[in-house]
Amino acid sequence: MSDKAWGGRFEEELNDVALRYSASVDVDSRLAPQDIRGSIAHVRMLAAQGIVPQADADAIVAGLEAIAVEIREGRFVWDNAREDVHMNIEATLSERIGAVGGKLHTGRSRNDQVGTDMRLFTREACEATAARIDRMLAVLAVRAAGTVDVLMPGYTHLQRAQPVRLAHHLLAWAEGLDRDRGRLLDCARRLNESPLGSAALAGTTFPLDRAMTARALGFAQPTRNSLDAVGDRDYLVEATAALANCAVHLSRISEELVLWSTQEFGFVRMSDAFTTGSSIMPQKKNPDMAELARGKTGRVVGDLVNLLVMLKGLPYAYNRDMQEDKAPVFDAFDTVDDTLDVLTGCIATAAFSRDAMQRALRDGFLDATEVADWLAERGVPFRDAHHVSGKLVALCVREGKVLSDLSLAEFQAEHPSFDASIFGALDMETAVERRDLPGGPARQRVLAAIQELRGRLSGRELDVDAVAAKFSARPVVDPRREQA
Amino acid sequence: MSDKAWGGRFEEELNDVALRYSASVDVDSRLAPQDIRGSIAHVRMLAAQGIVPQADADAIVAGLEAIAVEIREGRFVWDNAREDVHMNIEATLSERIGAVGGKLHTGRSRNDQVGTDMRLFTREACEATAARIDRMLAVLAVRAAGTVDVLMPGYTHLQRAQPVRLAHHLLAWAEGLDRDRGRLLDCARRLNESPLGSAALAGTTFPLDRAMTARALGFAQPTRNSLDAVGDRDYLVEATAALANCAVHLSRISEELVLWSTQEFGFVRMSDAFTTGSSIMPQKKNPDMAELARGKTGRVVGDLVNLLVMLKGLPYAYNRDMQEDKAPVFDAFDTVDDTLDVLTGCIATAAFSRDAMQRALRDGFLDATEVADWLAERGVPFRDAHHVSGKLVALCVREGKVLSDLSLAEFQAEHPSFDASIFGALDMETAVERRDLPGGPARQRVLAAIQELRGRLSGRELDVDAVAAKFSARPVVDPRREQA
Amino acid sequence: MSDKAWGGRFEEELNDVALRYSASVDVDSRLAPQDIRGSIAHVRMLAAQGIVPQADADAIVAGLEAIAVEIREGRFVWDNAREDVHMNIEATLSERIGAVGGKLHTGRSRNDQVGTDMRLFTREACEATAARIDRMLAVLAVRAAGTVDVLMPGYTHLQRAQPVRLAHHLLAWAEGLDRDRGRLLDCARRLNESPLGSAALAGTTFPLDRAMTARALGFAQPTRNSLDAVGDRDYLVEATAALANCAVHLSRISEELVLWSTQEFGFVRMSDAFTTGSSIMPQKKNPDMAELARGKTGRVVGDLVNLLVMLKGLPYAYNRDMQEDKAPVFDAFDTVDDTLDVLTGCIATAAFSRDAMQRALRDGFLDATEVADWLAERGVPFRDAHHVSGKLVALCVREGKVLSDLSLAEFQAEHPSFDASIFGALDMETAVERRDLPGGPARQRVLAAIQELRGRLSGRELDVDAVAAKFSARPVVDPRREQA
Amino acid sequence: MSDKAWGGRFEEELNDVALRYSASVDVDSRLAPQDIRGSIAHVRMLAAQGIVPQADADAIVAGLEAIAVEIREGRFVWDNAREDVHMNIEATLSERIGAVGGKLHTGRSRNDQVGTDMRLFTREACEATAARIDRMLAVLAVRAAGTVDVLMPGYTHLQRAQPVRLAHHLLAWAEGLDRDRGRLLDCARRLNESPLGSAALAGTTFPLDRAMTARALGFAQPTRNSLDAVGDRDYLVEATAALANCAVHLSRISEELVLWSTQEFGFVRMSDAFTTGSSIMPQKKNPDMAELARGKTGRVVGDLVNLLVMLKGLPYAYNRDMQEDKAPVFDAFDTVDDTLDVLTGCIATAAFSRDAMQRALRDGFLDATEVADWLAERGVPFRDAHHVSGKLVALCVREGKVLSDLSLAEFQAEHPSFDASIFGALDMETAVERRDLPGGPARQRVLAAIQELRGRLSGRELDVDAVAAKFSARPVVDPRREQA
Repeated sequence: MSDKAWGGRFEEELNDVALRYSASVDVDSRLAPQDIRGSIAHVRMLAAQGIVPQADADAIVAGLEAIAVEIREGRFVWDNAREDVHMNIEATLSERIGAVGGKLHTGRSRNDQVGTDMRLFTREACEATAARIDRMLAVLAVRAAGTVDVLMPGYTHLQRAQPVRLAHHLLAWAEGLDRDRGRLLDCARRLNESPLGSAALAGTTFPLDRAMTARALGFAQPTRNSLDAVGDRDYLVEATAALANCAVHLSRISEELVLWSTQEFGFVRMSDAFTTGSSIMPQKKNPDMAELARGKTGRVVGDLVNLLVMLKGLPYAYNRDMQEDKAPVFDAFDTVDDTLDVLTGCIATAAFSRDAMQRALRDGFLDATEVADWLAERGVPFRDAHHVSGKLVALCVREGKVLSDLSLAEFQAEHPSFDASIFGALDMETAVERRDLPGGPARQRVLAAIQELRGRLSGRELDVDAVAAKFSARPVVDPRREQA
Repeated sequence: MSDKAWGGRFEEELNDVALRYSASVDVDSRLAPQDIRGSIAHVRMLAAQGIVPQADADAIVAGLEAIAVEIREGRFVWDNAREDVHMNIEATLSERIGAVGGKLHTGRSRNDQVGTDMRLFTREACEATAARIDRMLAVLAVRAAGTVDVLMPGYTHLQRAQPVRLAHHLLAWAEGLDRDRGRLLDCARRLNESPLGSAALAGTTFPLDRAMTARALGFAQPTRNSLDAVGDRDYLVEATAALANCAVHLSRISEELVLWSTQEFGFVRMSDAFTTGSSIMPQKKNPDMAELARGKTGRVVGDLVNLLVMLKGLPYAYNRDMQEDKAPVFDAFDTVDDTLDVLTGCIATAAFSRDAMQRALRDGFLDATEVADWLAERGVPFRDAHHVSGKLVALCVREGKVLSDLSLAEFQAEHPSFDASIFGALDMETAVERRDLPGGPARQRVLAAIQELRGRLSGRELDVDAVAAKFSARPVVDPRREQA
Repeated sequence: MSDKAWGGRFEEELNDVALRYSASVDVDSRLAPQDIRGSIAHVRMLAAQGIVPQADADAIVAGLEAIAVEIREGRFVWDNAREDVHMNIEATLSERIGAVGGKLHTGRSRNDQVGTDMRLFTREACEATAARIDRMLAVLAVRAAGTVDVLMPGYTHLQRAQPVRLAHHLLAWAEGLDRDRGRLLDCARRLNESPLGSAALAGTTFPLDRAMTARALGFAQPTRNSLDAVGDRDYLVEATAALANCAVHLSRISEELVLWSTQEFGFVRMSDAFTTGSSIMPQKKNPDMAELARGKTGRVVGDLVNLLVMLKGLPYAYNRDMQEDKAPVFDAFDTVDDTLDVLTGCIATAAFSRDAMQRALRDGFLDATEVADWLAERGVPFRDAHHVSGKLVALCVREGKVLSDLSLAEFQAEHPSFDASIFGALDMETAVERRDLPGGPARQRVLAAIQELRGRLSGRELDVDAVAAKFSARPVVDPRREQA
Repeated sequence: MSDKAWGGRFEEELNDVALRYSASVDVDSRLAPQDIRGSIAHVRMLAAQGIVPQADADAIVAGLEAIAVEIREGRFVWDNAREDVHMNIEATLSERIGAVGGKLHTGRSRNDQVGTDMRLFTREACEATAARIDRMLAVLAVRAAGTVDVLMPGYTHLQRAQPVRLAHHLLAWAEGLDRDRGRLLDCARRLNESPLGSAALAGTTFPLDRAMTARALGFAQPTRNSLDAVGDRDYLVEATAALANCAVHLSRISEELVLWSTQEFGFVRMSDAFTTGSSIMPQKKNPDMAELARGKTGRVVGDLVNLLVMLKGLPYAYNRDMQEDKAPVFDAFDTVDDTLDVLTGCIATAAFSRDAMQRALRDGFLDATEVADWLAERGVPFRDAHHVSGKLVALCVREGKVLSDLSLAEFQAEHPSFDASIFGALDMETAVERRDLPGGPARQRVLAAIQELRGRLSGRELDVDAVAAKFSARPVVDPRREQA
């Protein structure tokens, strides 16, 4: 028998360039564990249904398990001429156990086989990435707990806007990532159907028990239409889109780490373990991990576009174009997984500077909203109150002052309602504490949010403190930097 | 008061080019209904909390409701100089009811306001698109019921592969679309939190009741973090990614409609109502709707990329870049909605040609798998059986025959196991009926699948037959074409 | 005659939804000027070739010119039922001048007609965008001339790296934009062939003079293959890719304007005419134009992806999918053009702060490379010199010093070669002046680069100073900010 | 000395995960040839300028050349801990020749070094891809010459439209590819400037001769601005965009090969050497190479998006994100290069079926335009002539006829002008020959176009026939298929 899965009607050998072009084993050999699990489930079902003798099935299972061990231990020799992971494993099986190995493929096609492999892979990869996100959430929960009392400017338009707590900002990072997790798990749930039994496209004439293989592989049920089962890849688009959303979140966290690492902001000092230097400038300490994380967003978005372009306009059922689905999906998961790990380490070990944040709060008129709110609370329509506050800020800019430098007379010159209590409203700590709504930065609200997040993670059976320890998360703001 | 939402500290007017560049009212005026509903919920809560006198709130609500009517009736005059939908409505409100209108914005910022608007819009748009998908599913269910007895070649690699039923193929289209529906509704569920109370980024000092506004607007709960609430747009990426997946499905259906409309395939004849002609070639009858549907995939994928590029690397909380989120989201929904409607009409009214499909079944060796299966069922390892069948096909190609033209001796020359029962396996109807597994093309399986789909749709309170009638769905395969 | 360009063999009217879905006049009416010029060239050639009587041609030309005036003056009534710009104009022509109007379309199809229109449009749009880039280059040349003596930190990894001149940095912006200009003009040159005469796809039987229409429309020559001429859109991809490259450059300039506008950097203060405020925070002065410019990058990249997805996998010659080529191309040009104008205004009127830049030079060890170079010039292998300098920086960080605070003994403790001349190397002005290579930041090099840029622009017949004046470019660094 | 290019001020080792995340040697080791050539040019210049002693430079050159040989022969051991190609080579050099190796990096940074490497790589890769395109053009020229006398239907909307020659269609493929070639060479020309001397971002204090290194490396001149030279990657976007355009062309050619390979079209039979079979359906002969080529379009478009997303919003000068520029560029070149080779082989060896094309010409009313033109030539306004022809087609459809089946009376019933000469216009060969315009399908025009293309290729010093022979291009249409 040839190493090819076909050949009966072919008279000429595949051209060398064409062989190299079409072989996929360097990419899809990664699916070997899933492929073997799927084959074992399939052949056991064939035996249970009496399609293949039990002894043959046992020989096949034993052969596959031996191959699985070889692959796991790196001893298996992959052969490009055998095209793909499926034929490499099956041809080796037949070399080992003889012609009986050929019975494995009864009632199956590479089309439903690879669909099964990819669904198993994607389901597990979604769950693994979700677990990585949980680890970052755990580190964020711990770092938030250690930074509840650090005030910092909140920014809009990258302009200082209103004061918040550093912990509140770190919790904002957590929220988006937790939704990414939800998207990945929704995808894992939606794809969790077994294509086995769909064969090439039209099912098979063998009396398979599709429910049995579905159960054996942890699928919720068999797929509902054989053409759809072998011909669609929407679940890969869904997974990669969820990863792209996550990559964008990570790019935004990275952007802030890069910004905060500048001498201008000075809010954070990354650990030496997560920074690198320059080949020419001896003083440099670059936030490379965050830059790479930001840059790698392009890979994941590119992977998503790759899939969408590949699928666009394909007729239903299987087309060979779909072989190209694997590289982008593997790359997207690997990129996001590595980035999650690296950024979790960066965040865990970063030293935040309370002093730098404190200095930044002094300028920037972060109390201008307080002035407007003070007026609005006393019945001035908010738009008017806003206008008055704006004029006071303009006065300060002209005179090089901050709002608390103004006299009561200067306040009253802009609006007669002002009285001395306005000065109490200008303190940053007070300003934050007065933002006492669910989801707001007041101390109790942030503490509650941390508790809520820890509760969510416990509900997922994650030991938050153990994870934080594993990543060497600093318990509080770096004392050295606080003294700087 | 100026028309601007700000201005107190500004000395110079906004440059004309800059005004035009930054004004968004031509795009975001579409959010007026959501904006007004959000404002009404907000001001009622302000009154309930005693932040604004009830009489003021009543005046504001009445004013807003009057404006809503004007907008609905096309009588409202939008002013580009008032930047956006929010300021157009609020400034008009204040013109009408006086300075009290300014109290509406108490404890709110355009940042949480636009977030509320976009979440309401996206939730409703997801649900509306899901309903459109349901309508296409209804049409597919009805057309499938009318084509259960039409056999056609199933294709892989666009080569004739194995016989299926047309109804089975139409049901494959339904499956992917139904998953798109699920993704849209998952998105609608995940985003369904109220940002109101997050204000600019840090919440507000006013004692708002966030749960009350959330309830009033149908949100499941308030958002959990104010920075995240105003600064993230991942739900728009999620919705647009779901739409891109759907657009790819529609491009694949369209590709098949285009292919099937060729003289070469001849499987379908689109209704005159959904085709156009040529300005130069009088004979042309082009499947333009399907081509446009296929081409418009680019818009939706482009919209998704637009959002991802826009968000990449943005610091948290609000940046003005985010104003650019609306055009791609509106465009993606509009494109997919229109395409669903048009293709539903195309499919409902298309005349399928049983004859053309029947002719196509005659050639193409669609029974070659039957030969291999026949051997495999008799204990020949499938790989060997496959090889034997391939050699028989090669023989036929050389001699210009089909498999049923071969003699038993010719069969037996390739494998001694063959007996006369092989000829029974070569009938197409038999071949399809033997594919009798869940999700397969056997008649009972397809009828069950149609019932299951109708059941799903009924569970969504859709009147399948009424929808099909609305789209003038043909009950059975076109009799005229059958005679052609 | 129907308003449709076809109809003879159609029995049923186009469905309303389908009509709306397929009509393109709301987008392509923008091509009216090109369409009419193309038609006039075509009919004049028809007359010259004796295909159409001269009198008929004259009537058609006069009719078209009258319509052109109406369109230009906004008096023309576009009718969606007439599908597109071509049929709107031609049907109106025939209403006005009678059946003779029908002769215009002799030997032509909408396929070569729209190809002609789009090539004319794209050629002119490329040239217009190139001219806009030149205007920004002129402003950069003038602003560079006014900032030659302003030193600033050069950054890598957003960490202060080595000192440069502000003018040098502004000239870096100019270089990328000038290459974008080159790409646009290469595109305009490559596409500059006339499709007229290709008709629907296969040329025409009429004895057209293709060279004559090509000349009349300013094309270099007729296209070489009729199928290619009507079926390809690679020139639109090329133009949009050039625009995407440009948009990315503009996003990077915008990122720097946003960063430099922060209170933390404080390097630039945008003019009030190009900033906006906050509806809730009275103190805010946001760099909205730069943020929008950065965000709009997504549109242009999305437009490029739109085109590539649309074209992927289309059979050659014309497919209706291609109708979708116009919206993304128009959007990409409009977006880049507007962004160029707005950013040119922003840069022209921005106030740079020499003081803030000077302060930033003091910290950050920008002289660490000088120390390494000093050693390398004295024969120490550069890698060793780099290591010594790094250790001196580490010493400074530990002791809260800058390099010039160290004693000679401290220098010599790390390497014996140091002598007192090392202190001369630490001055920023000296450090910049010693970077005296072509393309470097030394004063004479920057002045030469400005002269070279002005020379390039003069060679394009641009009056640099007039353009700068039009955009109110500040001649020197803002004196007010210098005093701040 | 550490293997790192930095380290003096670092107290902690790089984290393992971070090391793996940031190391690039598995990707950028491919740049070794360029890196070594760049280093040799640099150190020779250093010696010529007296910056490094000639003997040291000689030792470095010899060392580098020895390393180049090792790398070429696969004997060089790459070390991930040494981060990248630059440090692997330099550290090995220093191990071999001692501390003098450290002098190589004098007056240089990895920033201008990698910029030099990538420009050399991209220049050469553009030229190599252009040469591959030329090879495909040569094959197309030869195959066109062998198929001048094969008529086929030209299609629009995938509907049979008007008759053309197969050669004419193959030449349409050539045109787009030739423009891709032009874009790649424009890119190679535009990027052809030497960054050496730009150092980290601000040039260097060493008296380098930038023109000398530029000359030595074949660059037209040094770059004009040091910040731009190290911080921009627009040339990579340009190259990848040109490749994406090319990939789209190849996807369209592939789509046609897939379509033409269907049993329904039957226009082409791919060589066994470029097709594969099915693991389950013995009769299958799939056009896998064309499908893969079509699917791989996604990779190239994804690579382009990757680069654009990565660059979006980066501050000028170098950011570590840019390390991510290599993988997509390498992947895009490799994908397009492999696809060109494979498709060139497919096209060279494909057997076209004159019979199938002839059969397709019989139906489809490809002569309907002839009828309209016949009337128009006799003074009937084209729009009316078109309408008449449409009605005749409708009549034929109703009666199951083709146009030449109609009687003269039936013609005259629709328009009185018809006379017997109309029947002469309905012959396909005549119809094609009457399309006798430059760029049209008439025999002499196609022969001239082939000559012109061969002339273009000869001008590029390509031996067209030798290339065609190398790819085993069939001289004429397959005789076996003609008999089928």
